[in-house]
Amino acid sequence: MTEFKGVFIVADGLGGRPTDTPEGKTCLEAARTPHLDELARRGALGLLDPIAPGVRPGSDTAHLSLFGYDPFEEYPGRGVFEAVGVGLEVHEGDVCFRTNFATVDEDFVVKDRRAGRIHEGQEELERALQGLQPRSAPDVEVLFKASTEHRGALVLRGPDLSPSVSEADPHATGQRVREVVPLEDTPQARRTAQILNEIIRRSYEILKDLPLNRDRAAKGLPPANLLLPRGPSTVPRFETLPRRYGIKGAVIAAGALYIGIGRLLGLEFHRAEGATGGLDTDIRSKIALALEELQTKDFVFVHIKGTDTAGHDRNARAKIEFLERIDEALGALVEGLDWERTHLAFTGDHATPIAYGDHVSDPVPVLFVGPNVLPDATEAFHERAALRGGLHRFAGRVVPMLAGYNNWLRKFGT
Amino acid sequence: MTEFKGVFIVADGLGGRPTDTPEGKTCLEAARTPHLDELARRGALGLLDPIAPGVRPGSDTAHLSLFGYDPFEEYPGRGVFEAVGVGLEVHEGDVCFRTNFATVDEDFVVKDRRAGRIHEGQEELERALQGLQPRSAPDVEVLFKASTEHRGALVLRGPDLSPSVSEADPHATGQRVREVVPLEDTPQARRTAQILNEIIRRSYEILKDLPLNRDRAAKGLPPANLLLPRGPSTVPRFETLPRRYGIKGAVIAAGALYIGIGRLLGLEFHRAEGATGGLDTDIRSKIALALEELQTKDFVFVHIKGTDTAGHDRNARAKIEFLERIDEALGALVEGLDWERTHLAFTGDHATPIAYGDHVSDPVPVLFVGPNVLPDATEAFHERAALRGGLHRFAGRVVPMLAGYNNWLRKFGT
Repeated sequence: MTEFKGVFIVADGLGGRPTDTPEGKTCLEAARTPHLDELARRGALGLLDPIAPGVRPGSDTAHLSLFGYDPFEEYPGRGVFEAVGVGLEVHEGDVCFRTNFATVDEDFVVKDRRAGRIHEGQEELERALQGLQPRSAPDVEVLFKASTEHRGALVLRGPDLSPSVSEADPHATGQRVREVVPLEDTPQARRTAQILNEIIRRSYEILKDLPLNRDRAAKGLPPANLLLPRGPSTVPRFETLPRRYGIKGAVIAAGALYIGIGRLLGLEFHRAEGATGGLDTDIRSKIALALEELQTKDFVFVHIKGTDTAGHDRNARAKIEFLERIDEALGALVEGLDWERTHLAFTGDHATPIAYGDHVSDPVPVLFVGPNVLPDATEAFHERAALRGGLHRFAGRVVPMLAGYNNWLRKFGT
Repeated sequence: MTEFKGVFIVADGLGGRPTDTPEGKTCLEAARTPHLDELARRGALGLLDPIAPGVRPGSDTAHLSLFGYDPFEEYPGRGVFEAVGVGLEVHEGDVCFRTNFATVDEDFVVKDRRAGRIHEGQEELERALQGLQPRSAPDVEVLFKASTEHRGALVLRGPDLSPSVSEADPHATGQRVREVVPLEDTPQARRTAQILNEIIRRSYEILKDLPLNRDRAAKGLPPANLLLPRGPSTVPRFETLPRRYGIKGAVIAAGALYIGIGRLLGLEFHRAEGATGGLDTDIRSKIALALEELQTKDFVFVHIKGTDTAGHDRNARAKIEFLERIDEALGALVEGLDWERTHLAFTGDHATPIAYGDHVSDPVPVLFVGPNVLPDATEAFHERAALRGGLHRFAGRVVPMLAGYNNWLRKFGT
């Protein structure tokens, strides 16, 4: 193992805006976060542009950027992260999609893009969709795996496929599911579009009369009666973190995307008990597992989703409470980390302010702490403190900087 | 001459970490530097990423970046800087190497990669290695020049050569000198590898019985009995600083690398009396020569190596004392510069902290001072002050910024 270890914690959608609360405070300012404030006093703050100033990040592109990969160069599309995250094996040449279970009427008009954020029956749905073999393409294998709530992943495997196809998801209720069309004039794109249209049609045939959906209809719940693929992607070839830095690392996350990113970057996935990816997740359990993994690993990446969810829900109270729960859980880290040999980076992958309810490009606070980090004068961890942070402002590359403090970097030149 | 003049001083490996001293101060914080502090009060500080956040710089790549050249695009390899720095003329198509005199046993096992940092006999060694004409390649000319201590440079000139060859240097004692192998499958790379292997073998034949080495053996000193080439490079075509800015400039340095960089960027080299490139160098003499050169030049680049050497030696006391000697020498600049018409930039090319003893990616403080620089609130020059620096944080491009203050820049667009 390396001399120093690294812990990288991302609170998804961490950042906010002064419009978050009536008092003009961001949620992070309003939250009581004594542990983060103590870490801020011991370390240094910066203002992080997840990708670049004025670039509005997705969670996938932002994470790539934070890990030190240029998303403009290396972003393969979303699907592969979800596919790997739900545990599908992918091979070069596969075309991957994330999927939603949606609710449509018999005319394929979308009633609910998330089938009421369905919490049940994922196994039944997944089982029903096995053998989705397209009749129009007998040489193509179709893999499907359900994930949390309405989420899942679809992989097409076979010759002559292309990710250059449009999305079926109209991204709005009350609109018809769109016909998938090729986005480039190639036989591969045309064939892939045709396969997808067949899969979508057949998913409705298979799902509409599923016992689960009859039950839901009886209870007045929206049925999960259509598979809606989106985010087509290829399978990338990242230089993994173990290869880049000569380390062993783990990812502790619940959301498939984050598990997938970690796995594709060469991290070992570990499931923390009680981690749900939602506001009800057990953050203490994740931190405890991180401390455990650090016994045998050089690097642990912990992803916490609830902050983003509360932001999307435009629920300031929920976001503040969740931030306070993160801070409580960090107590175990403040106590338990070997601070003479460990550097911690804590940040968000973007801001999800309450009034807007979606990702924005505003910079977010980032904290580095550990023996090689020169402390600055900040005494709290939030957006306003980060405006005076000693690390000033930079774009992405949080993990390379952490690797720098850990003496893991190879020299460029001599 | 231009209206404003520019002085660019690099203290190599300037930056440090809070682990440099038991009190948690960096060497630069611990050093008494009244002149630098006065200049900080009069000017503005920034935090400089030599290349980019989380990129660990070599001295060569960092200097290119500080001078405003993108090392990811324009770095030719190290050898050519050394070759030009020791005074070899290079032509397009040459393949250049830096070399070490090393100590090996009869089985070519490395006993000392630097022949005890040999301080004597450079002329005798250089003379002995003239006429190293490879028998396997009569159309290739071999140029060799010894430099300070164990250092030197080798240039291969002729048709069909390539820098894509591996290094003979095992970079560790107790290991055998490695066979040079082609790094690409071309006749040029194969031929260059063959030539190098012959040169290395023949250098041992020539050097092993040299009177100098017999004397050293008698004194129990490691003989300089092998020439170990490394850092293969092509000859780059930089847009020179005189061409870019319409100026005349000088480089004042002792290390071949820095002289070479300056020369390749179109600066006139001047040797300061007593400048050694070591901790015993005469810094006052360099500053005096800089003031003299400014009589007839628009720009002077002064390179001071000792800070880096002390860092590599993990000697905090030596680094602090050397920093204090730099500061003393800067007194002449504070006194003698025409401050109404001169801008000064002072920085390091990277940090070399004591505990690690090698380059790290941590940002380093940079100071700009002169009539066009808006002063910030900093009152001292060190890493912690730079955390509050008014110039915030930026990557490389110190010389373009200096050129900007000096009104030397051509407009981009209209």
